[in-house]
Amino acid sequence: MERDNPLAPEALGPTVTVGEILVEIMATTIGNGFLAPQALVGPFPSGAPAIFIDQVAQMGGSCGIVAAVGDDDFGRLNLDRLKADGVDVTAVTVSADKPTGSAFVRYRPDGSRDFVYNIKHSAAGEVTMTEAAKALFSRAGNVHVMGSAFAISGLWSILSEAVSIVKARGGSVSFDPNLRKEIMQGAEARKRLDAMLSITDLLLPSGEELLVAADAVDEGEAVERLLAKGVREIVLKRGDEGSTHYSKVFGRVDCPAFTVEEVDPTGAGDCFGAAYLTSRRAGLSPARSLLYANAAGARTVTKQGPMEGVSSKVELDRFIAAAGRETEA
Amino acid sequence: MERDNPLAPEALGPTVTVGEILVEIMATTIGNGFLAPQALVGPFPSGAPAIFIDQVAQMGGSCGIVAAVGDDDFGRLNLDRLKADGVDVTAVTVSADKPTGSAFVRYRPDGSRDFVYNIKHSAAGEVTMTEAAKALFSRAGNVHVMGSAFAISGLWSILSEAVSIVKARGGSVSFDPNLRKEIMQGAEARKRLDAMLSITDLLLPSGEELLVAADAVDEGEAVERLLAKGVREIVLKRGDEGSTHYSKVFGRVDCPAFTVEEVDPTGAGDCFGAAYLTSRRAGLSPARSLLYANAAGARTVTKQGPMEGVSSKVELDRFIAAAGRETEA
Repeated sequence: MERDNPLAPEALGPTVTVGEILVEIMATTIGNGFLAPQALVGPFPSGAPAIFIDQVAQMGGSCGIVAAVGDDDFGRLNLDRLKADGVDVTAVTVSADKPTGSAFVRYRPDGSRDFVYNIKHSAAGEVTMTEAAKALFSRAGNVHVMGSAFAISGLWSILSEAVSIVKARGGSVSFDPNLRKEIMQGAEARKRLDAMLSITDLLLPSGEELLVAADAVDEGEAVERLLAKGVREIVLKRGDEGSTHYSKVFGRVDCPAFTVEEVDPTGAGDCFGAAYLTSRRAGLSPARSLLYANAAGARTVTKQGPMEGVSSKVELDRFIAAAGRETEA
Repeated sequence: MERDNPLAPEALGPTVTVGEILVEIMATTIGNGFLAPQALVGPFPSGAPAIFIDQVAQMGGSCGIVAAVGDDDFGRLNLDRLKADGVDVTAVTVSADKPTGSAFVRYRPDGSRDFVYNIKHSAAGEVTMTEAAKALFSRAGNVHVMGSAFAISGLWSILSEAVSIVKARGGSVSFDPNLRKEIMQGAEARKRLDAMLSITDLLLPSGEELLVAADAVDEGEAVERLLAKGVREIVLKRGDEGSTHYSKVFGRVDCPAFTVEEVDPTGAGDCFGAAYLTSRRAGLSPARSLLYANAAGARTVTKQGPMEGVSSKVELDRFIAAAGRETEA
């Protein structure tokens, strides 16, 4: 018999994720790249796993992150923010040697973006399974896996171990595939993806990631195939077209998007996933969880800075009420 | 018998230096560090050796640099600038893997500065003696050594080899000790310093560096000791108190400073040294070379950005004339 909720309840322990903590520096003008001095703003706390886990904390979920920063202001900026918001940072290593990772971003006139990254050779590139990380996983209720880890062998081995530890104690696994085509080249990446899908309780793809994950040509086929594989719940992020929950228990549940003016889309998917996961772990229905997730994704794009639009539960309740949607679900 | 000018003439070949190429990102407000998002401006081309060599080029001296940048906009920004200004960049490696080095800088209320660096693990940290570098040294007339290289074993071995190659063909060595106390800890650093001093034709210390270099307690003793050791010419940078040339041939030659409003002191010493060296290699007297050097140092501090205040020969001539000092020397 299928349980109503595949996710481990809050009481089992924190949601823990693994990955990069960065600062983001943003160009304040639209144009092509960084070939001349220009006005910038930053450093903003950033890194998809960091944004995700901060949104979990702001929703009131207990949570922690396994990561590494440099012994510099960029690392302190991130740790201060995460700590202040309630994230367990006991498993964040401070590298004596490498700087905190960074990403410079500038919007082009056509809406695409130019980046200059320092990640691989930064502290973010040397996350390891420390004693502190093991201790955190040993009391975790849910591991949240980000697809960007597929490209990094070190992260992948930590995640594999983490998933085993957490599953063994009755915990659950959420997975945001965040797949880029260039990551999915090669048999190794596909093998890792399939291994992860086989133990995923909640899958959070956006757009075409669903088809890539399922190796399918349309949404219906993809959903069917993934649920047959053992994925318990799929939540498809459709951006300004809202979101959809799929599961054997509830079938299909749609939730229309909130209409907002987009200032900076960075982090929208991470906030969405965090709000959904935390709502479900708190025992809310799929429909209600989608409403919070859509609200969290919508609010974050109205603020400049990847982590600046993260919302507290109270802010989401107000936002939902202001949109006249508090009676939903 | 002492020659009038210990520096190899322009005709022998270019002035070549070795070291870090960076971008600099500057905070636009005064305050403590980078613990919160704030207004910034950048990326500016930077790195002491890059500023130095750009000033040599702008003075009309032939020159090149041995360095490494990343395959990113920050590297392209630097290469574009150096090439446009006439620097030979054939010995600049473009790393496929590592990002271009960077330095964030912010002024504190007391005038001191906070930095966040990414140098050691950037492309700047992997400069090697490539075939292109050897080819450049094999036709160089002067090697310019920066003291910051003392801390980096890889750079030191390149410089040692470069000095041998250039000396063997009748070239000269200029040396800006740029000594920081923390670099001079340990017997190895002292040994390297003494080895370099023993073949230095032109030494360009600022302030207390003269005393550290000579291991002396006052200026007179330091100068005497260094000239006895074989240093042919010493030019002491005194900031807003001007500069002084010492040599056996000309004795002491002083040059008062130009009075300017300081906006950004970064690069002043590098521009000073480049203007002096290039003037002397062009055959100008110590007094006239000091005047150009003081003018180059003064002009650069009036501009924001480390390489933005580099001056052409024409600009220096105008600046000197405007100050009513064109008749000097």
